[in-house]
Parts: sequence; C-alpha cells; structure tokens
Amino acid sequence: MKVEIIAVGSELLLGQITNTNASFISSRLAEIGADVHYHTVVGDNPARLKEVIEVAENRADILIFSGGLGPTKDDMTKETIAAHIGVELVSDNQALLFIENFFKRANRKMTDNNKKQALVFEGATVLENKTGMAPGMAVEKEGKHFILLPGPPHELHPMFTDEAIPYLLKLNGKQEVITSRVLKFYVIGEAELEHRIQPILDKQTNPTIAPLATEGAVTLRITAKAATVEEANALIDPVDEEIRSIVGEFIYGIDDDTLSSRVAELLGQQGFTLAAAESLTAGLFMAEFATQPGVSSALAGGVVVYDEKAKIEQLKIEKSLLDEYGVVSSECAASLALNVQRKFSANVGVGITGAAGPTPHDGVPVGTVWIGIALPGKKPKTYKLLLSGNRNSNRQRSARFALYYLIQELSNLDH
Amino acid sequence: MKVEIIAVGSELLLGQITNTNASFISSRLAEIGADVHYHTVVGDNPARLKEVIEVAENRADILIFSGGLGPTKDDMTKETIAAHIGVELVSDNQALLFIENFFKRANRKMTDNNKKQALVFEGATVLENKTGMAPGMAVEKEGKHFILLPGPPHELHPMFTDEAIPYLLKLNGKQEVITSRVLKFYVIGEAELEHRIQPILDKQTNPTIAPLATEGAVTLRITAKAATVEEANALIDPVDEEIRSIVGEFIYGIDDDTLSSRVAELLGQQGFTLAAAESLTAGLFMAEFATQPGVSSALAGGVVVYDEKAKIEQLKIEKSLLDEYGVVSSECAASLALNVQRKFSANVGVGITGAAGPTPHDGVPVGTVWIGIALPGKKPKTYKLLLSGNRNSNRQRSARFALYYLIQELSNLDH
Repeated sequence: MKVEIIAVGSELLLGQITNTNASFISSRLAEIGADVHYHTVVGDNPARLKEVIEVAENRADILIFSGGLGPTKDDMTKETIAAHIGVELVSDNQALLFIENFFKRANRKMTDNNKKQALVFEGATVLENKTGMAPGMAVEKEGKHFILLPGPPHELHPMFTDEAIPYLLKLNGKQEVITSRVLKFYVIGEAELEHRIQPILDKQTNPTIAPLATEGAVTLRITAKAATVEEANALIDPVDEEIRSIVGEFIYGIDDDTLSSRVAELLGQQGFTLAAAESLTAGLFMAEFATQPGVSSALAGGVVVYDEKAKIEQLKIEKSLLDEYGVVSSECAASLALNVQRKFSANVGVGITGAAGPTPHDGVPVGTVWIGIALPGKKPKTYKLLLSGNRNSNRQRSARFALYYLIQELSNLDH
Repeated sequence: MKVEIIAVGSELLLGQITNTNASFISSRLAEIGADVHYHTVVGDNPARLKEVIEVAENRADILIFSGGLGPTKDDMTKETIAAHIGVELVSDNQALLFIENFFKRANRKMTDNNKKQALVFEGATVLENKTGMAPGMAVEKEGKHFILLPGPPHELHPMFTDEAIPYLLKLNGKQEVITSRVLKFYVIGEAELEHRIQPILDKQTNPTIAPLATEGAVTLRITAKAATVEEANALIDPVDEEIRSIVGEFIYGIDDDTLSSRVAELLGQQGFTLAAAESLTAGLFMAEFATQPGVSSALAGGVVVYDEKAKIEQLKIEKSLLDEYGVVSSECAASLALNVQRKFSANVGVGITGAAGPTPHDGVPVGTVWIGIALPGKKPKTYKLLLSGNRNSNRQRSARFALYYLIQELSNLDH
C-alpha cells in the first residue's frame, strides 16, 4: 500500500509552522510496514488542493490529509474532497453532541460555523476526536482510501494512533494489533549502538527495530504486529532480552521513562533525599530532576556555586584543595557532592563542576567536566566527561550525564 | 513567481526527521514576497524524484530542492536533475579545494565519493557552503529555476539567506537587499499584540511586519526591501518607533537578544551581581541566566529551596512568616529575594515561589507564582503570576517572567 500524506494549510507555506504531522504519521506508518512515498503541503486553496488530490490519486493508494477541518471559511478540506470524489456531507450526531456539550460547558454560544465541524462523508468511518471538536473520517472510493485528520498535533496524534492505525490494519483483511516498546539509552551513541546490535537488526522483520537519536540520547523502538497485545509482547520480549544482553548497561528506561523519572523512582525505592551543588550547570541538574511531579519529598535542595568564592563561602570547599587540584577536578567534584550532602542533610549528594566554554576555565579545556556522587556511608565516586559541544549543549549534557550516573549508582547499591 | 520546495530524503518519509527546511525557506521567502504554493517530500529514489520534478515544473516557476547532495550512493538529487534538464556535471574548483582542505585538516583520507560533492551543473551559479562540504547551485532552464541546497539545516540556513535570497532578488531585475529587525516581546500575547498594532499592520507593504509566537514569547519581524541596507533601515526605523509608542513596555530586546542576554547586559552596565532563591523553578532561573557566556562575574550563586524545611534552614525564612502568609505568597517571595541577596552578598536578589502543579501547593491553586526582586537599598518588589499551563510550562514561564521583570526593574533603576 503506497501512502501520500497531504497537509493543508497556508500557515505551513508561509513557514509559520512546521509540518510535524507528516513526520509523526510517517513514523507510525513505518511501524506497520506501510510505505510512505510522498509528503505534500498545499495552502487553503480549493483549486490547488483538487490538483494535489489528482496527482496523489495517480501515485498512491492511501491519501492521508491533515488540516482544514476547522470552522472557518478557510477550512475547505472536507468540502473539496467530497466534491472531487462525489460523496455527500452529512451531520454526525455523536460529533454534533460533543460540540454542543463543549459550548455548554464553556458557557459560550455555538454558531452555525461550529455545526459545520460535525459534517462527515456519508458512509465514512468516523474517527473520534477525543481532544478537539473536528471528527476525522476515512472512506474508500474506487480503490483509493481517503483519511482526513484535524491539523492540531494534540488532536491528530491520539486520533491517528487510536483510530486511523486500526482502520489501516483492517485494510489488510487481518485483525492485527501493533505494540511498541521503546528502549532508552544514554552514553552510547547511535552509530556505536547500531554497530553492536547489527546482527539483531539484520534478522528482524517482526518485530521491527527502529533506532532514533534525539537530543543526545538514543532510543530503539521495537514494534511487533500480532493478533493480540499478548502475542505482540511475546514477540518483543526475546528481542528486548537479546539487546539487553549486549548493551544493557546503557539502557536507563523504557517507553515514557526519562532520566529524571528513573532517578525519582530509584530514590523513592530507598526513601532517599537528594541535594546538589552545581557549578557550570548552574541549576540545570536540579531543574531537570524537578520536572517530575511530587519530588518535594526527594529534593532536599541545593546550591549554585558558580564562582570560586561561592564554592568556598557557601559550601566550605577548602581553598587549599582548589589551589592544589583546581576547580575542575575529581577532588572538587567529590568535595562538592559530600559537602552539599551534609549541608542539606540529604542521603545523596551530587557535585558538578567543569568548563562549559566558550573559553577554558581555570586552565582546563572546554568540555572537561567532573561529576561527583556521594552515597550514604560511602566515599564519593567521580566521573570525568570530555564533551565536544558548545557551551549550552555541554551544560545540558553534563546535567543529563549526572542523572545517568546517578541511575547507575542507585541501581547498583547492593553490589 | 510561484515556488515549490522539494525535500529529498527517505529519512523524512520514515518520520525520522521533520522537514524544518521547508518552513525555514518558506518564512524567508514570505519576507521577499515570493509565493510558495507547494512543499513536496520524496525519498532517495531517482524515478520518483523525476516524476516530482515533472509535476513541479507544471505548477511552479522556481523549484527549490534540499537534500541529496551528499557523498553516498543514496544522494541522487544533482544527478537526477542534471539528466532531466540536460546539463552536464562539472567539478567546481573552489568547492573541491575546500573539501581537500577539510580532509587535510582532519588528517583523514579523502575518497572519490567526496570528490562527487564538488560536482555542479555546468553554467550554474555556485552557492557557497561555508558550514559544510556540498556546494549549492542555481540554474535556469527554459524559464524554470532550479536551486539545489544541502539537507543539514546548519548548512542550508546560511546558504539560503546569504546566497539563494540574493539570487532570487536578482531575478526581478532589481538590485535589492532585504533587511530584517526582530522585536522581541514578553508578557503580551500574540492576539493582544496584533490587536493593538492592527492599524500599523494594515497599512504596511514595505516594510512588512510578521508576528510569530514561539515558546510563550512573541516576536515581530519587520522586513524591508531597498537598494541598500541603509535605505532598508530607514524604512524600518519609523515603523519600529511607531510600534514602540504603542507596546514598547513589552519589548525586551531585538534580533538575537534573549531574556538572559538582556539581564546580563543590564547587570553588567551597573556592575551588579545576582543571586537567586528558587522553589518551584528548582534552578531553572539561574540555569537560564547562565546560558550567557561569561556570567561568572555576575552570578554570585543561589540556592534551590524546594521544601519548607530548606527555606527555613538554608535561607532563614521565618517560620512565623510561612505560617501567617504561606509559602506561596508575596511575603515569602520578598523574603527569599532579600535573604539570598544577603547570603551571597549580591547586589540583586531574586526569589521565586509557587505552585507548579499538578496538585495545589500549600492550599494555593496550581499556576499561582510569586516573584520577588530585591535591588540595592530598596524594599523588595513582588509580582504575582496566574499561569494556566502544565507543571513544566508553569516552571519554564516562571523563570522567564522573573528574567523579564528583572529587565524591567534594571531598566528603570534611575526612575
């Protein structure tokens, strides 16, 4: 099945927004093995949209549209497609009820324009919109499938996953489900990861394995097709295990886990509190940790000690230590971790010091970072980073590396 | 002139990356009044690319391609277009020299594949690539213009602005320059801003004014076309002034200014140092400020006092004050600002306390935030926010509002 994804909206052609819907839909279609051959963007112009549809019908079997389902006169996607393929627009009762209730709740007056949003193709499969007012729809006409989705990503994403994907799977005549598990990696790079699991990648067809690198972290999405979720998971499990046997040390979580959610979880299991002393990261580590709701019981607090004076005055770092080893040193990171742990009476102390750039700091090259971690009753452990990014990528990665090493340390507490 | 933007790359169709090049090119073209009618994405497939070119030639005058200029066998854009329009590929000496030097510097061996990157259309205008190895090119064939650019955004952006835009402007037969000035707003929303300057927006053709909302902040890009940069600026100046006369209080900077660069600049002018006490933001404010290089002289440091205990023990906030007014209060924010200013012997103290969510904090509704600012020899001033986002957007916005109010306070020091 060849797919073309058509986004409708002049704001895309003006560069005011980026077509993230096409990449989202494409990534989900890749998982079910559907081939996307083209993305097209066209403005809110019925004549040009009609031409785009004609081109697409000649080169694809499934045409997926996003945008142009709104209540204003610019929104012409439904009307243009209906006229082109010769179907009537009829009001969908469920959608109309939803819209009426929306206005009642908001205590606002509903206009005729809003009623337009409840119109769907006669005989179409209505795709429920749980996060907005415009329903989606799917219809087949002369062997071609037309799937219409609203433009706002927070409406399109759940609708595509929960409504359009099952519709597409049914087209194969099979009752199938798609299940994914995302393994999340840190420290290891995408190329290195792919190299090490190449034999596994080579032999996979179901489940498929898709590596993706984003913001310095790497993920592997394992996706299986099967008759039931249980069967799909039974296909995923052995692949998951095989990957872990090779590169398990770099995996910090799965699916929606983040570095900070894992740290919060592991601290919670021990009933531990955390304090941090941050130099180059200047609060990023704590701020990242606090993205987790409910961390007030775990985050004892911390200090930003950006310059030498603050390190000495606020955290009692020995002047002699700084003179001997320097501010960017294993000794300073260990001392920061230990002293902030004591100062905040926390179970765990983290110290981060380094040269973010753009200029060397205290004679140490840009990108050199030391992370200290103090655990209860143990000598602080330190880690050295040699980063090659710019100032702010170095600061970001330092904060994330600290979270990652903390996960490693907290996971290995009993060893 | 009708434009179609064609991105070539299978990774786009697999959803591994998003077509940000199309939105970037579109926004730049909007500034010079060129009409973009379509975006198309096609994979690394010469036959399908050829068909896409044929469709595009029928509906556009200018075809702008991104991607597929690399050294691997997947990269077929140049070869496919050359065969289609009947031009020869010849080696560009300057591009070849650049590539050779790149490999010499990196002490790596250059392969024949890399030489392929220096091939350009015979007779084409070569568009210099200052940030990568593949040169771009522009050629006219039977009234249609073909502009080829590399895929990586950090290569495409400067090349498009510095090389492709002047090429396109010359097509009009006029020797013109385009100059933009971006006004940056905070606190005011996009709808409100547009409403207030509607009379100015309505009458503008040169310069044009383009509002854009990103990450909670709003910008206005004023763009003028003229024979020289000076003449363009002379067109921009009165519009800039007119806008400032209406909504100047919300402007925190221009062009590359950020909230933190403006704070750093204003602190620097006074020779002031800054300290912060952060509760819900947990370090975000200081981390955001420290995105600026060279802030170690200005950032005295600060504390993250996430829970009540830390506020009392680390910053000597009076228990009686917290009992009387609560943790999320004007009084607490002022006390945080004042006590952290003293603790770090800083000129300026900032305190941020609030309920980030998802659950109310200390009986205060989610989104309620107090920001305190203590300036030398003045009673601390406090600001209240009522934010409606989720936990992390509330935390982000609190940190940015604190920077914004600090800019306001530091700008009005003499008043």
